[in-house]
Amino acid sequence: MVQVNANFAKLQSSYLFSTIGKKVREYQTAHPRAEIIRLGIGDVTRPLPAEAIAAMHAAVDEMAHAETFKGYPTDIGITFLEEAIRADYALRGVALELDEIFLSDGAKSDCGNIGDIFGTENIVAVCDPIYPVYVDTNVMAGRAGNPDAGGHWNRLVYLDCTAETGFLPQLPGDRADLVYLCSPNNPTGTAMNRAQLQAWVDWANENASILLYDGAYEAYITEDLPRSIYEIPGAETCAIEFRSFSKTAGFTGVRCAYTIVPKALKSGDTSIHALWGRRQATKFNGVSYITQRGAEATFTAKGRAQVRETIAYYLQNAGAIKAGLESAGFSTWGGVNSPYVWLKAPDGMTSWELFDLLLNEAQVVGTPGAGFGPAGEGYFRLTGFGTAEKTRQAVERIQTRFAKFEAGGVLG
Amino acid sequence: MVQVNANFAKLQSSYLFSTIGKKVREYQTAHPRAEIIRLGIGDVTRPLPAEAIAAMHAAVDEMAHAETFKGYPTDIGITFLEEAIRADYALRGVALELDEIFLSDGAKSDCGNIGDIFGTENIVAVCDPIYPVYVDTNVMAGRAGNPDAGGHWNRLVYLDCTAETGFLPQLPGDRADLVYLCSPNNPTGTAMNRAQLQAWVDWANENASILLYDGAYEAYITEDLPRSIYEIPGAETCAIEFRSFSKTAGFTGVRCAYTIVPKALKSGDTSIHALWGRRQATKFNGVSYITQRGAEATFTAKGRAQVRETIAYYLQNAGAIKAGLESAGFSTWGGVNSPYVWLKAPDGMTSWELFDLLLNEAQVVGTPGAGFGPAGEGYFRLTGFGTAEKTRQAVERIQTRFAKFEAGGVLG
Repeated sequence: MVQVNANFAKLQSSYLFSTIGKKVREYQTAHPRAEIIRLGIGDVTRPLPAEAIAAMHAAVDEMAHAETFKGYPTDIGITFLEEAIRADYALRGVALELDEIFLSDGAKSDCGNIGDIFGTENIVAVCDPIYPVYVDTNVMAGRAGNPDAGGHWNRLVYLDCTAETGFLPQLPGDRADLVYLCSPNNPTGTAMNRAQLQAWVDWANENASILLYDGAYEAYITEDLPRSIYEIPGAETCAIEFRSFSKTAGFTGVRCAYTIVPKALKSGDTSIHALWGRRQATKFNGVSYITQRGAEATFTAKGRAQVRETIAYYLQNAGAIKAGLESAGFSTWGGVNSPYVWLKAPDGMTSWELFDLLLNEAQVVGTPGAGFGPAGEGYFRLTGFGTAEKTRQAVERIQTRFAKFEAGGVLG
Repeated sequence: MVQVNANFAKLQSSYLFSTIGKKVREYQTAHPRAEIIRLGIGDVTRPLPAEAIAAMHAAVDEMAHAETFKGYPTDIGITFLEEAIRADYALRGVALELDEIFLSDGAKSDCGNIGDIFGTENIVAVCDPIYPVYVDTNVMAGRAGNPDAGGHWNRLVYLDCTAETGFLPQLPGDRADLVYLCSPNNPTGTAMNRAQLQAWVDWANENASILLYDGAYEAYITEDLPRSIYEIPGAETCAIEFRSFSKTAGFTGVRCAYTIVPKALKSGDTSIHALWGRRQATKFNGVSYITQRGAEATFTAKGRAQVRETIAYYLQNAGAIKAGLESAGFSTWGGVNSPYVWLKAPDGMTSWELFDLLLNEAQVVGTPGAGFGPAGEGYFRLTGFGTAEKTRQAVERIQTRFAKFEAGGVLG
């Protein structure tokens, strides 16, 4: 009989966002006239940059004629997008070789698939709270061990990100071979500075560990912070960086990302670069030519300006959420270098209690922090990806509901 | 220190097609005026169907406006492509539920990633010769064991496909939990009939094995043969089917495929459907909306006619190769229900000897059978994916070179 991968049985069957969806549908059914505002989503809503649209139309036309038709993206020797990405890194002082840039259909795919090249015996460290894909993919691969009653996996090392640490991960005291870092962070919205990243790079090099650095939100950085781990001396021997056009340029619907694996990154004598190259050559056939042309256009002067405009729009929403909630008495983090605002549930509420209260009494949907890990309990995520108008309405509703906050407590 | 996946070290470092590319470049450098004709490629060359082009332009336009913009394909509740695929299966009498159809960026991805949901202790059977991805991905996962001097992996079960069996796989005498079948076959071009498929389905159900059925070339079937494994009674409890728009509708450059996992497919009490759903939800974010609209258009009446025209073009090339080589004294297979023509190297030549001879003396590039597995030695693959004109020229050159075939032997 076929044996299944037994690790899958350890995963929770209900995914965070499907539970949220179910609760929202039930509320809407019970209150058909309620105008629910969704600030829980991690998906973009603004249209693609006009330059990308034009480039994609031109690419579609190329596919209509034998003379300009393009087949397998990996076989036809095209490198225009890698060249544009390399030039973009060079603007930050990072020198990459073209074949250190691996295009893909999404950072989620890469963050998950990267595990293929590593042994199952490695000890994995994750921030807590964090984007659930890092944990779930390691559960599937057998690196997480078993869950305890508190929601911790016994073979994972947890880097608690709490109010005390400014929601930043601290260096682990225990052994950790593979460390997922995400900056600016999802869900907390916090970003690491140069000194903090340097400490991680130095630690990784000293311990022969590898940092799996998720920079999917780097375009939201507004302060003077590194945008790439490779701005940090020594990172090329200890870090893989994941990037995406999804949150940067609105590509969630057209799928394009890239992963940097430096040739200097090794485990003993084994080239990690060669392993990932072999993994991708064997299990992946490249990114749509049309998508690639669209992505390339986001690096032109006009394209960059259009991207900046969209990101400014989302950041303005995030700022409005942050300011509005703080004025209502909430403690918040993020929202400055990130589309995400992370807030503390008041009065000792659990994150699901705050979810239910906001849905039932303000018709606003957010994401309970507990969905991002045990240390997310008592916190909540709102996002700047809605429209400006709906975001303003949502903030007003929350302010109205919490006007009594200081007086008698939230639940009273 | 980080441990790498040690199985990667077992893989050959040089991939078949990169070796071919190197030989061709060297020949071209030494003979700059030579007009090399490439019939080794497995990539399409004809433009996309006009209906797909129009649909993709319309989809690009949708992405330009907030009102019609589409984000994560997996989150926005679109099922138009799954509905079109379901309707296409219904035409062959196969009833599928929408969520038994999993869209992806490519059959190569799915054929490789499917291993994630199965245990490493399963015994895997592969046809020999075969598309190398099945073997390589199982080597990476640790299911293949170690290679011997003859190129066999000691934990794989090989289903030799030889002239004696008409290049069709025979039921294994040994235990085999997961069996990769590809029909019409790459590289041999042979297709299984109803009775042959029924024997495999019955065997799999009796042995609680799972068939991993790669139907990437089903659109090339011209004879009265099943196009889907699910046309065979009982397949829904023992088979996963991989399909692609790549060779069907020329989508190699825009990336779209789908995998069918029936809800009736189980291992004991464990739903294989649920496992694949969880794997994809965790490690994949869906197919480009633009690509999906293009794929949908290939199922319209006009789109189907355009697809048929392109496939007829490739099949005509394959037929010309087959007829031309047979008239030159070669034994050939395939080319009727497949774009691939499989031929025996004459005079006991190895497949690389025939490769070198055709490159050096006819300036025609094909693919050595040995690259597809040990049983491919002594055979050679040519494809119908070139232009009609170049294909005709290539056949003439081969005929000229082999005019002396019957007289004094090829190498004489």
